[in-house]
Amino acid sequence: MKISELINSMGIAAQEAAKTINKASTGQKNDALEAIACEIISQRETLMAENKKDLVNAEKNNIGEALLDRLKFTPARFDSMVEGLRQVAALDDPVGEITNLAFQPSGIQVGKMRVPLGVIGIIYESRPNVTIDAASLSLKSGNATILRGGSEAIHSNKALAKCIQSGLKVAGLPADVVQLVPITDREAVGKLITLKEYVDIIVPRGGDSLIERVSREATIPVIKHLDGICHVYIDEEVDRQMAIDIAFNAKCNRYAVCNAMETLLIAQSQAQIILPELTKLYLSEAVELRGCEKTKKIVAGLNTAVEEDWKTEYVAAILSIKIVENIDEAIEHINRYGSKHTDTIVTDSYKNSIRFLREVDSSSVIVNASTRLADGFEYGLGAEVGISTDKLHARGPVGLEGLTSQRYVVLGTGQVRQ
Amino acid sequence: MKISELINSMGIAAQEAAKTINKASTGQKNDALEAIACEIISQRETLMAENKKDLVNAEKNNIGEALLDRLKFTPARFDSMVEGLRQVAALDDPVGEITNLAFQPSGIQVGKMRVPLGVIGIIYESRPNVTIDAASLSLKSGNATILRGGSEAIHSNKALAKCIQSGLKVAGLPADVVQLVPITDREAVGKLITLKEYVDIIVPRGGDSLIERVSREATIPVIKHLDGICHVYIDEEVDRQMAIDIAFNAKCNRYAVCNAMETLLIAQSQAQIILPELTKLYLSEAVELRGCEKTKKIVAGLNTAVEEDWKTEYVAAILSIKIVENIDEAIEHINRYGSKHTDTIVTDSYKNSIRFLREVDSSSVIVNASTRLADGFEYGLGAEVGISTDKLHARGPVGLEGLTSQRYVVLGTGQVRQ
Repeated sequence: MKISELINSMGIAAQEAAKTINKASTGQKNDALEAIACEIISQRETLMAENKKDLVNAEKNNIGEALLDRLKFTPARFDSMVEGLRQVAALDDPVGEITNLAFQPSGIQVGKMRVPLGVIGIIYESRPNVTIDAASLSLKSGNATILRGGSEAIHSNKALAKCIQSGLKVAGLPADVVQLVPITDREAVGKLITLKEYVDIIVPRGGDSLIERVSREATIPVIKHLDGICHVYIDEEVDRQMAIDIAFNAKCNRYAVCNAMETLLIAQSQAQIILPELTKLYLSEAVELRGCEKTKKIVAGLNTAVEEDWKTEYVAAILSIKIVENIDEAIEHINRYGSKHTDTIVTDSYKNSIRFLREVDSSSVIVNASTRLADGFEYGLGAEVGISTDKLHARGPVGLEGLTSQRYVVLGTGQVRQ
Repeated sequence: MKISELINSMGIAAQEAAKTINKASTGQKNDALEAIACEIISQRETLMAENKKDLVNAEKNNIGEALLDRLKFTPARFDSMVEGLRQVAALDDPVGEITNLAFQPSGIQVGKMRVPLGVIGIIYESRPNVTIDAASLSLKSGNATILRGGSEAIHSNKALAKCIQSGLKVAGLPADVVQLVPITDREAVGKLITLKEYVDIIVPRGGDSLIERVSREATIPVIKHLDGICHVYIDEEVDRQMAIDIAFNAKCNRYAVCNAMETLLIAQSQAQIILPELTKLYLSEAVELRGCEKTKKIVAGLNTAVEEDWKTEYVAAILSIKIVENIDEAIEHINRYGSKHTDTIVTDSYKNSIRFLREVDSSSVIVNASTRLADGFEYGLGAEVGISTDKLHARGPVGLEGLTSQRYVVLGTGQVRQ
């Protein structure tokens, strides 16, 4: 079968399966999640063997230690896949919830009902556990899914997809509720992201080049996640120890993640006291520091932060530091150079906390906590299919609710338009 | 100045103005709406004179009676513009509302805050009162707007925009919160819908060719409103008089509107009793009826409805009628041929009402009321900038809430990621 025909037929099957999963009961969806968890437990040997094939190929292709590590099934990762499925089963079902059903002057009652989006295409790289995350969230939110994983994980993903489809069948749901593209050709992605007739939304998860390609070529709406240029701003009135803890954690907890801090902003009045101690901590972790002119006067020997630094997502052990006059300059800087992802203020000022929440235009705006907490699990969403930096539909971590939309329902007793 | 430079500079000004209107207080926004209302009242003579210029041009260009009528300022239309502004002022301010602020295991409190989208480009045709509707909703929802009206209304629109900008200044807000493209060149639209850097969303209001052009060429997200192929389904158990009233109103209240019924579906068991009386009513209004084979056996002399009829938005005094077995066939037909706009069931069955609400995938799903009630005013939104048939972001009538989105806010007390 030609690639375009294959993807097309998967689209048709997904749309057909969507009709069933769209109206499946909460109990039935939870049964399917539990059945998938049981499949993964019972098929552990097979899954390990298929994963081994990917690992052998990966080593042949020299994909590097970091990617190899992400690819590998370990006992802990099995546990976390099974745990993840059960957590999603334990979440409230968003589908069918009707809110704000209120009477209008004509006598009709108007409210909004939460409904699945339909068919979701999810395109991701390397880590095979995303197969389970993505499938479980789509299933619970009543959507059919077409998954397209990375080529280096194709054997692992196919084995996981088999478990998912067996679980669906055990629960009496169509196997096509979750389909995996069984081939690794790039052409399949191009076809999937233009399959307007059958796919309602595309969620890309991966590096910049994947997301840029999908954004450019897709003719279907995309929930996309671009750069995370996140800031911590240390305000004038502040608990200094808290400021140091948060600023240190936001950078050093993990470097290669989108919610790590890339630029530290600090109020002039606190810089002299906090920066010497804080920069010592960073240097003890071998973080490369790049400072503005004022910062360099306080901490000797730093590299200079240039204009380009304020616009850069390092995703590495590098941090730019800027001393600002006050919250006005901090907000101005964040809205100008940030990527609308996640930004934190550390402050003891009620007024400034309110201003920051209101005026910083990012998908997560945080008072007195680390940017690293911007995450589907930490937010109580159970899991996430991605973090959206778009302004329409869903912003921030996208969980079950982000995979649904609301439409109007009207209950009348015979009303007509006058 | 070249057209592209003009639109570009309007984009820059809008983005700057957005920063102010985004954080303006509810009181200040309401003051601006009232000040605009007062301007319209006091500038009535000027507005009439400018409108006259458009009417004279329109007559010269033979635009036709219907369009001429939509273009014309009348005392009633002045009242309704002023009334509209005051109604929007009376609506709750959606901006800044924080919902579901709940503690998470780490101790952070996570909620969602409703925020403006930023800069909205609204492209519309003929009726100059849309200038006021669109400006008032954008303003109240904290957005800056670039309006692009139809060329035939350019003098009226420019005069209205002057009133709006005066009102904004009276309330101490930047005039650039609402800008009108002052030229009629088509090139201006092309530039506006690709002004990605400054414009966050495009709302087209008008005929199919406008909406298709905007959807095709825009590089900015579009809230679009395509066809309204709306259905009324008369179920097996039904209050017959109510069914007749609703089915008659849905077709005959107005023909050239998107929420008018285009296809009547009726359960086999009711067709014999209801159709003879109902079709007599339609024929008394000179509605052309096209029936399926079964319908033609009950009502003699009808035209035949062919496959194409089920897919057609007539927007005219034409109705297609199909007899279906039961609710299953009705839902199947609607989801297959409808346009996800507005669909009504008339029923006395609890079970079928629930099924219809849940399984019909349209932006408004109605039980026992006319499709004609799918409207921003009737839904209590105050007004609407359009009716969205998209599945992401906003579905159905788009009022204040549809011009905002929600982002996460996090309140911590020093939490870091473990």
